[in-house]
Amino acid sequence: MVLSDVQSDNPDIQINLTRVGVTDVKKLVEVARSNKRPIVLISSFDIFVDLPANIKGANLSRNFEAIDEVLEEAIESPVYEIEELCSEVVKRLLDRHEYASDAEVCMKSEYVIKRKTPVSKINCQEVVDIFAEARAKRNGTVRKLIGAEVTGITTCPCAQQIMQDKATDELKKLGVGDDLIDSFLKRVPMATHNQRGRGYISIDVQDGYAVSLDKIIKVIHESMSSETFELLKRMDEAHVVENAHRNPAFVEDCVRIMAKKIVTDFEDLPDEAVITIKQINEESIHKHNAFAERVAKLGDLRREIQKT
Amino acid sequence: MVLSDVQSDNPDIQINLTRVGVTDVKKLVEVARSNKRPIVLISSFDIFVDLPANIKGANLSRNFEAIDEVLEEAIESPVYEIEELCSEVVKRLLDRHEYASDAEVCMKSEYVIKRKTPVSKINCQEVVDIFAEARAKRNGTVRKLIGAEVTGITTCPCAQQIMQDKATDELKKLGVGDDLIDSFLKRVPMATHNQRGRGYISIDVQDGYAVSLDKIIKVIHESMSSETFELLKRMDEAHVVENAHRNPAFVEDCVRIMAKKIVTDFEDLPDEAVITIKQINEESIHKHNAFAERVAKLGDLRREIQKT
Amino acid sequence: MVLSDVQSDNPDIQINLTRVGVTDVKKLVEVARSNKRPIVLISSFDIFVDLPANIKGANLSRNFEAIDEVLEEAIESPVYEIEELCSEVVKRLLDRHEYASDAEVCMKSEYVIKRKTPVSKINCQEVVDIFAEARAKRNGTVRKLIGAEVTGITTCPCAQQIMQDKATDELKKLGVGDDLIDSFLKRVPMATHNQRGRGYISIDVQDGYAVSLDKIIKVIHESMSSETFELLKRMDEAHVVENAHRNPAFVEDCVRIMAKKIVTDFEDLPDEAVITIKQINEESIHKHNAFAERVAKLGDLRREIQKT
Amino acid sequence: MVLSDVQSDNPDIQINLTRVGVTDVKKLVEVARSNKRPIVLISSFDIFVDLPANIKGANLSRNFEAIDEVLEEAIESPVYEIEELCSEVVKRLLDRHEYASDAEVCMKSEYVIKRKTPVSKINCQEVVDIFAEARAKRNGTVRKLIGAEVTGITTCPCAQQIMQDKATDELKKLGVGDDLIDSFLKRVPMATHNQRGRGYISIDVQDGYAVSLDKIIKVIHESMSSETFELLKRMDEAHVVENAHRNPAFVEDCVRIMAKKIVTDFEDLPDEAVITIKQINEESIHKHNAFAERVAKLGDLRREIQKT
Repeated sequence: MVLSDVQSDNPDIQINLTRVGVTDVKKLVEVARSNKRPIVLISSFDIFVDLPANIKGANLSRNFEAIDEVLEEAIESPVYEIEELCSEVVKRLLDRHEYASDAEVCMKSEYVIKRKTPVSKINCQEVVDIFAEARAKRNGTVRKLIGAEVTGITTCPCAQQIMQDKATDELKKLGVGDDLIDSFLKRVPMATHNQRGRGYISIDVQDGYAVSLDKIIKVIHESMSSETFELLKRMDEAHVVENAHRNPAFVEDCVRIMAKKIVTDFEDLPDEAVITIKQINEESIHKHNAFAERVAKLGDLRREIQKT
Repeated sequence: MVLSDVQSDNPDIQINLTRVGVTDVKKLVEVARSNKRPIVLISSFDIFVDLPANIKGANLSRNFEAIDEVLEEAIESPVYEIEELCSEVVKRLLDRHEYASDAEVCMKSEYVIKRKTPVSKINCQEVVDIFAEARAKRNGTVRKLIGAEVTGITTCPCAQQIMQDKATDELKKLGVGDDLIDSFLKRVPMATHNQRGRGYISIDVQDGYAVSLDKIIKVIHESMSSETFELLKRMDEAHVVENAHRNPAFVEDCVRIMAKKIVTDFEDLPDEAVITIKQINEESIHKHNAFAERVAKLGDLRREIQKT
Repeated sequence: MVLSDVQSDNPDIQINLTRVGVTDVKKLVEVARSNKRPIVLISSFDIFVDLPANIKGANLSRNFEAIDEVLEEAIESPVYEIEELCSEVVKRLLDRHEYASDAEVCMKSEYVIKRKTPVSKINCQEVVDIFAEARAKRNGTVRKLIGAEVTGITTCPCAQQIMQDKATDELKKLGVGDDLIDSFLKRVPMATHNQRGRGYISIDVQDGYAVSLDKIIKVIHESMSSETFELLKRMDEAHVVENAHRNPAFVEDCVRIMAKKIVTDFEDLPDEAVITIKQINEESIHKHNAFAERVAKLGDLRREIQKT
Repeated sequence: MVLSDVQSDNPDIQINLTRVGVTDVKKLVEVARSNKRPIVLISSFDIFVDLPANIKGANLSRNFEAIDEVLEEAIESPVYEIEELCSEVVKRLLDRHEYASDAEVCMKSEYVIKRKTPVSKINCQEVVDIFAEARAKRNGTVRKLIGAEVTGITTCPCAQQIMQDKATDELKKLGVGDDLIDSFLKRVPMATHNQRGRGYISIDVQDGYAVSLDKIIKVIHESMSSETFELLKRMDEAHVVENAHRNPAFVEDCVRIMAKKIVTDFEDLPDEAVITIKQINEESIHKHNAFAERVAKLGDLRREIQKT
C-alpha cells in the first residue's frame, strides 16, 4: 500500500508562511571543545523553515527525520564549538528543504560552569542559561546569535545613600567629626535593599565571526554589584555582602557597565553586530521586577562609549 | 532630613537605554463595556520608558507612584474598552516623564468568556489569554497591539488519509462497491491523531482604529478543526469529535484560515496594520509541538488572498 | 440513536482508584462578603472522587456537567465566604456520585488586597496567592484546608552581625568610645544580604470552624523582616529598608514567629487542627532558595509555645 | 577578626522545625552504570534536616559546604546506580548534622533514553522526567523513593464507541451485512479524541531493595494507548495512530494497567513498598486535564490483582 501524501497538495488558501516547524524538541547534545572534555547538554530546539504559498504542508512529519538526522549528524561530529552548532544545523536544513528560502534554528540549554568561592577558594558549580540561534537564507547569508543569562546580586544606590545620610546625622549627633565619619563610611558600606539580579547579553552577527560564550558570561558576572555563588563559607559570605554594598548599582547601571565591557572585550566583532543587553532585578522591596535594556548596533555603542 | 536623590545624577557611563521600567506588576483592572457589566481582570503589566545618556536612573522608585496613579486613574474611569486601556496609560506616562521620548505598556490577562455547549446548549465558561500593548512617541504617534491566544482541537489530515486508504482497502476486500465506500467515508470520518491546538492572533495598528478583541477570539475559535468546551455532555462530545474529524487541519492550514478570516472580518483596518498569526499544536504523537506563523502587513495579506 | 456508555462497564482489571477527576478547571468565581463588595476571582479547580474496583470509569464526561452545575450553583448563591466555597462543592459532589465514598476539591487563586504605603499612606494593591481544599467522606465528615502564600523581605542576621562587628572595629580604630558605638549601632542597623521571602500558612480543620483568610495573610505579613509594597515613595522605601534591617530573620525565625502568632490569633480553633507553616527565601547571595517548614497539630504548637 | 556565629544561639521562640534546608540547588551529576557509559544529568536538589527547638539556625550558610562536599563526593565516586545517589547523600548528611534526627534529599532530573522508531527502526531520543528521594532517621532506617513521568498517547473509549455505533448504522443503511461490519470494525479502528497522556509511577521502599528506573519507565510506556516518539516516518506515524486506536484507554484504565504490571514486574519488592500511580490526560476536547491516581501498599495491590 502506498501511503498518501497530503502535504504536497496545493492548499486551498494560497498565502506564504513566515515560519513552519517544530518547537520544544529536546536532545542530548555533546559538544567538543578544543583541549577540553566535551560538554554534555540537554538542549531544547525550535526549528523552522518558511513555506511558499503553493505548498500545503512543510512535510514535517516526513521531513522531521531529515531535521533529526541533521541534528544527530551535527551532534555526533565533535568538531564544533557550542557557538557553531546552530549555524551548522541551519545550513544543512536549507539543503534538504528545496522549497524553503529561509531556515532558522534556536537552541537553549542549561550550562554548568566550574567556579571557586571568592575567599576560601573551594570548587563549586554554577548553572547559567545559554542560548544560540542561526538564520540562513537561500542566497547563502547566515546570521547567528549567541547569548546567556546569568544571576548575581545588585544593591540599590538610592536607599544606601539615604542610610548613609542617616548614619552621618547620627554620628554627628554623637559628636564624631566629619573626617572620621567620611573615613568610617569608606570602610563600612551602609545597608540598602539588595536582590537577585539577572543579566542578559546576546550578540547577533553574521556567520564566521567567533563569539565566545565564556566571555559573555564573564562580562555579565562582572557587571552587577557582586557575583554570587552556590557555596559560601562564612568568610566568603562576608566578602560577597561587603563587596556588593561597595558597588551599588541600579538596573540602568548594570546595562551600561555591560555595554562598556562589550565594547572593550569584543574588539574583533564588526560594527553591524546587534547587541541586546538586559538587566532584571527581582526587587526585594517589591513583588515586581525592575528592568532595563539596550538594543543597539555595536558601532553605535562604540561611538557612545568613546564620547563618555 | 532631605532624602538624597541619586537617580538624577549624571551616570559614569553615558549611553542611552532603550527601555527602563518595571515588569510583572499585577493589578485588578475593572473595564467598562457599553451596555454590559464591567469586566474584572487580574492583569500583569510591563511598563517602560527610554532613558537619555545623561540621566543615571529612570527614577522608577520615585516615579512609580506616577505610573501607578496613571494606572489607577485609567482603571477607575470606566470609559475605556479593554482595548483602549494601554493606549491611555502610555500617553499619560509620557506626560509625566519629561526626559523620555518613548513609552511602552504591555498588559496580559486571563479573560473569561461565556459560551454554550454545541448540542445541549448548556452555559459554560472558557478562559482565554488576552494581551494588549501600546507604544507612544514624544511626537504624538501611538501604536497599539491587541491579541489573544485561544485553545481548540486539530486533527491531522495526513494520518487520516492513510486510515481512509486502509478503510477503503478493507471494505474492497469485503466486496463492498466503490460507490458505497465513498458514501460511507463521507458520512463517517476516519481516525487520526488529534490534539490541543493553540491559535494566536495579534493586530498592531496606529491608535484610533477600533480592534475588537471578541472578533479576534471568534476568528481563532473558527479556524481549528473544532472548538472545544470545558463542559461536554455525551452528545456534545460526539459532535465535537465528529466535527473535528470532518475538518482535518495542519498547523499551516490553521494559520492560512485565520489569515483569510482576518482579511474578511477586519475590513476597516488600514493596509499598514501588522498582523501576527500563529498556530501551536501540542502533537499527541510527539512530545514536541508543531508550529506555523505568518507575520505580514494587512495589505500584503489582502493582496495574497485576492490572488487565491 | 442511543449513545453507548462504556464507562459503566466492569473493568478488566478490578482495583480501587484513590482519586479520579479533572485538574486545572478555570472558573470565574464571585464570592459574597458580608457588608462588602463581592470578590471576583479567576480560580483553578482540581475535583476528585474515589472509584470502586468494579466501575470502569468515573463518568466524568457524563458527570462533569454535574460537577460544573454544582460549581455554578455554589458560585451563584452568594451566601458563602470564600473559605466555605470548597466545603459546599465537595458535599454536593458526593450527593451526585452515588458510588464514591470520598470527594475532594482544591481551589487556588490570586487575590487582590487593598493596602496603604507605610509612611505616605497612599493606596496600593497587592496580589497574594490563596488556596482552599475540602475533603468529604460518605459518613459525613468534612475537613477543609485554607491557606495563603504572601511575599515580604527578609534580612540575614548572620551577615549583619559580621558587618556590625566590622563597624565596631572600625569605629574603635577611629577612637570612638564603646558607649557611642553601641548607641550608633542601635540607631543605624548595619548592612546584610536581604531578599524576597515567601511565607506560607495552611490550616486544615474539620468543617464548621471559621478560618479567616485575612487573618492568615496578616500573620504572614507580620512575620518577615518587613512587609513589602508594590508602590513606595522615597520615604516609604527608606522606612522599609530600615525596618527590615532592624528585624533580621532566618527562614527558621520566620516559621517560628508565624507559629507563635497562629497560637495567639487562632484561639478558637481546636487542638486537632493541622498547621503547615513554610518560609522560602530567594537568597540574594545564591541562586538556590533557603527553606524552613513546620507541620504540626495546633495542640502541639500550643504546648511548645507555652514552654518557651 | 573572629566571625560571629548567630545561628548557634538559642532562639527566642523555641519550637521544633520539621524541615530546614535549601531548595533548587542545581548540580551536574555523573552516574556510573555497570558496563555502560556514565549518565550525565543536570539535577535539581532539595536538601533538608530537622531542627530541635533550642537551636536558632540550621547553619546552612556554614554547613552548606558539608552538604555540597557530600554531594560532590557522592557524585565523584562512580559506584552508584542513579537510584542509590540520594540514599548515599542522606546518610552522610545525618553524619554531619549532629543535632538532626531526620535528613531528606529530593532530586529531579531530565533523563535521555535511546529508542528506535516502531516500524522504520531509526534511532531517536526521548527525554523523560525522573526523580528520587531518600529519608534517613538517626536510628538508622532509610527509606527511598524512585519514580518517573513519561509521555504517551491515550485514545478515548467512550467517543470511539459512539463513532463505531455510527459506522455500524451507516454500513447497515448501505446494506452491508452484520458479519462484514464486524470484520471491518476489527480491522479498522474508528475515530475518537486522543491526546498527550502523562503516566507517573513512584515506588517508596526501605533502603536496600533495588528499584530499576528503566523498568518503571518501561511499565509507563506500555500502559497507555500507544508509546509516542520524537521522530516518526510516515509508516511509523500510521502504525502509532492505528495502534493507539486499537487500545483505547480512560485515565482510569491506564492507572489500573500500570498497577497490574507493577505487581508482575516488581516481584522482589516487599509488601510494605508504597506505590503511587498517576495518569494525567491533556484532553484534546477540553482545556482542562483528566486525572486518576492510586496510592497503595504493594501488598494491597497484589491482593486486589489476585482477586481479579
